[in-house]
Amino acid sequence: MAPRKRLLNLETMNQAVLDVKVPILGSVLARALEIQQEIDQGIVKPFKKLTKCHFGDQQAMGHKPRTFLRQVAALCTYPELLDTDNFAEDAKRRAREILKTLDNNSVGSYNPTYITQVLPRKIAKFIEQRDGGVPSDPKNIVVSGGMSKAVLNALALAADEESPLKTGFVVPVPYYPLYGDAIALFGATKVEYVLDEERGWAVNEENIRESIRAARQHCNPKVLCAINPGNPTGHVLSRDNMEVIIRVAAEENLLLFADEVYQENVFAPGVVFHSFKKVLFEMGPEYSERVQLVSIYSISKGISGECGLRSGYIEFVNVDQAVFNYFGILKSFDIPSVIAVLTLEVLVDPPQPGDTSYESFQAEAQNLLSTQLEKARLAEEIFNRAPGICCNPIQGALYAFPRIQIPERAISLAQGRGQAPDIFFCHLLLEETGIVLVDGTSFGQAKGTYHFRISLLHPLEELKSILEKIVEFHAKFLQEYS
Amino acid sequence: MAPRKRLLNLETMNQAVLDVKVPILGSVLARALEIQQEIDQGIVKPFKKLTKCHFGDQQAMGHKPRTFLRQVAALCTYPELLDTDNFAEDAKRRAREILKTLDNNSVGSYNPTYITQVLPRKIAKFIEQRDGGVPSDPKNIVVSGGMSKAVLNALALAADEESPLKTGFVVPVPYYPLYGDAIALFGATKVEYVLDEERGWAVNEENIRESIRAARQHCNPKVLCAINPGNPTGHVLSRDNMEVIIRVAAEENLLLFADEVYQENVFAPGVVFHSFKKVLFEMGPEYSERVQLVSIYSISKGISGECGLRSGYIEFVNVDQAVFNYFGILKSFDIPSVIAVLTLEVLVDPPQPGDTSYESFQAEAQNLLSTQLEKARLAEEIFNRAPGICCNPIQGALYAFPRIQIPERAISLAQGRGQAPDIFFCHLLLEETGIVLVDGTSFGQAKGTYHFRISLLHPLEELKSILEKIVEFHAKFLQEYS
Repeated sequence: MAPRKRLLNLETMNQAVLDVKVPILGSVLARALEIQQEIDQGIVKPFKKLTKCHFGDQQAMGHKPRTFLRQVAALCTYPELLDTDNFAEDAKRRAREILKTLDNNSVGSYNPTYITQVLPRKIAKFIEQRDGGVPSDPKNIVVSGGMSKAVLNALALAADEESPLKTGFVVPVPYYPLYGDAIALFGATKVEYVLDEERGWAVNEENIRESIRAARQHCNPKVLCAINPGNPTGHVLSRDNMEVIIRVAAEENLLLFADEVYQENVFAPGVVFHSFKKVLFEMGPEYSERVQLVSIYSISKGISGECGLRSGYIEFVNVDQAVFNYFGILKSFDIPSVIAVLTLEVLVDPPQPGDTSYESFQAEAQNLLSTQLEKARLAEEIFNRAPGICCNPIQGALYAFPRIQIPERAISLAQGRGQAPDIFFCHLLLEETGIVLVDGTSFGQAKGTYHFRISLLHPLEELKSILEKIVEFHAKFLQEYS
Repeated sequence: MAPRKRLLNLETMNQAVLDVKVPILGSVLARALEIQQEIDQGIVKPFKKLTKCHFGDQQAMGHKPRTFLRQVAALCTYPELLDTDNFAEDAKRRAREILKTLDNNSVGSYNPTYITQVLPRKIAKFIEQRDGGVPSDPKNIVVSGGMSKAVLNALALAADEESPLKTGFVVPVPYYPLYGDAIALFGATKVEYVLDEERGWAVNEENIRESIRAARQHCNPKVLCAINPGNPTGHVLSRDNMEVIIRVAAEENLLLFADEVYQENVFAPGVVFHSFKKVLFEMGPEYSERVQLVSIYSISKGISGECGLRSGYIEFVNVDQAVFNYFGILKSFDIPSVIAVLTLEVLVDPPQPGDTSYESFQAEAQNLLSTQLEKARLAEEIFNRAPGICCNPIQGALYAFPRIQIPERAISLAQGRGQAPDIFFCHLLLEETGIVLVDGTSFGQAKGTYHFRISLLHPLEELKSILEKIVEFHAKFLQEYS
């Protein structure tokens, strides 16, 4: 046989895939991984180890899992433990109840009935309670494994790859990079609405309408994304802002895609999370009967922070059953882990007053939220004290997203390297301090502004020292490049 | 606002998705689900409950999980249990080892290093041992959650949706329906090679070459799928047949996609599973250095049958690193559950002689395989004794796929209903007996032949009575419609 080029190569592979970026893995993280290898090889650096501030993985940073949740999961995994006395009574009771609803009492079965019926009924109750009684239909709830894939599956329904006019996905700037990846993957077009940093990342009504109007010249906008609480911004949308978004969705006939995975991570005094569904229904039937809404929830965030287990749910509102069925089909390739979804059950139906685990379950939540508040205050203080750094109040989620000044000379230098200026800054910081941030470019930012995202997950004292190092480095950077 | 049509409806949604079928959920299962509801409502049927023979979910049918695997999983989920004495010593030791390799010792972290480095190294050793020393590079191994999604991600790399000439996926007939779904989802074209039922589902070399040659007139064949052991057929490919497939892949420059998820479920005396990788390497460098191979493994099948946990791996051979990187990206939206993947570690690195759990771990495997053999023999016997039913020897996997005679009058009747004749048969059987099978049409079958797939998962005595009921029903059916 004559030697031939292998069939599958970069030129012959699916070209749509080539445009997709790894979530949260820009050049900074790629370099951090290289540095880790260099350290492992014994190469001397100005720091002993990397300081990872680039992800939202709470448990990797020392956050303890919720005891009741893990007890129930262990009992369901190895039911022989039900006969031992190493568990809270209510954990055993709950495990018995769950096992009873599983096919042949086993987490090792696919368990379609548990995943598509038993659990959605519990989730619907949870949603109704959260939303002050707004009804939730279990039929409209889909339990999934990791939510990144579920988000892609939901957005896939709206993408129209065959139409000559591309599908427009309207996203806030800054946005969580997954939405950019979805746009690339489905050959869609990104339509941006820039959040107003000066007004605490508020939605600018004129700006969002103008964006969509302009986009209609070259694409077909179909989906309007909102992320609340915001990632990377850490703001919580005001009720007014939510009404603006809903009105725009209604008037422009867009599917409202509400990324609400940080809904439990709201800690600023006086700030309350409203779900888009609740606000939608409170705006009356003109909206609640018409606007198509998709909302997502994840066990990876919230109080439990179970990133490694992989579960969450999507609620669909006003999405035709016929379309919705196809989501079920896409999702059917992506059956969630039963051990993961049963921990979702624990979270939507937690221990009640009087139950053995009630007090500790509540205390775990209170502790986490008060610690998150302390860390947010600390970050705001340290950043806002520094000349050339400016950080909005952080009300929720797990991050700070401060704006940083970058001197003209650094901007030119970065441009010479073909790098965005904030990426340039993050690389310099990484090489000198070992601190791994995510550059603002990965999330999008208003033209001429520069940011980074830092996860506020390290223990308080450690976080303080990290923040101070960043601020100190930035001061030196300002001086050196001015 | 004037009432407007909601944006997302069947006409506006992604049209590619409309062509996708639910895996293994044809009209027969859909009707079975309705019947279940009718029974729940108190409607009287000729049977008390459904007899589910349509899926490969071993644990749902009473198969016990592997003790060592579940012990390790429970210990890692709730490490406080390490201080109790409810576990085998080696389970504790293994759990401690695994926890040490996890980020912050937690299954609740994303654990990228464990998933992409630690575990692939163990899997590579397992593969080398399985293949008699053929080298395996951990860099070419990707650990995934459920393998359906992983298969779609791998096939997505090859699909070229932008080319006017559609991508051809060459699949055996019968094939596992997931491959048909992938073809629909990626707008590809199905190219069939019909297995020779008369020769125990052997590959017909002339037939496969001719199929591909003919397909080149209207599409661009890029992937050649082989399923070994066969689903739904239960045959194990002979070494000769594997060589044919490899030669065709080499000569026709196709990516060889080897679905080997039933590799441990081989029980017929004298029948041995060879991996495609092993055969490829034994055919010499002319093949082993050129043929691009993708092989998949799943914890849902094999001895453990852990369908509910969701894990497995893919090994890539000769796939350019550049392309392979993009698989990693697609996969990155689909992070597996850490509890699931650590059970994969247990399976590829099982207890060794001298370990406390060694004997019982081995015994569990032996028991399962000998039971599977008994069930296979029983199915062959009962089917082949029946006039108008014919069943090939079942050597592996979990199913029988007998050919059934359907009288002309039944064929016309079915056609009048717009139903394939085998679907017609399965519906009649379901309505009268409550037995849920999957029709041959769902898998594809040679023109003019009719089949069904039955899972051989019920306990032996129960299975015997099910098989007898089917045979009896078919005899009556032959009589009634002849």
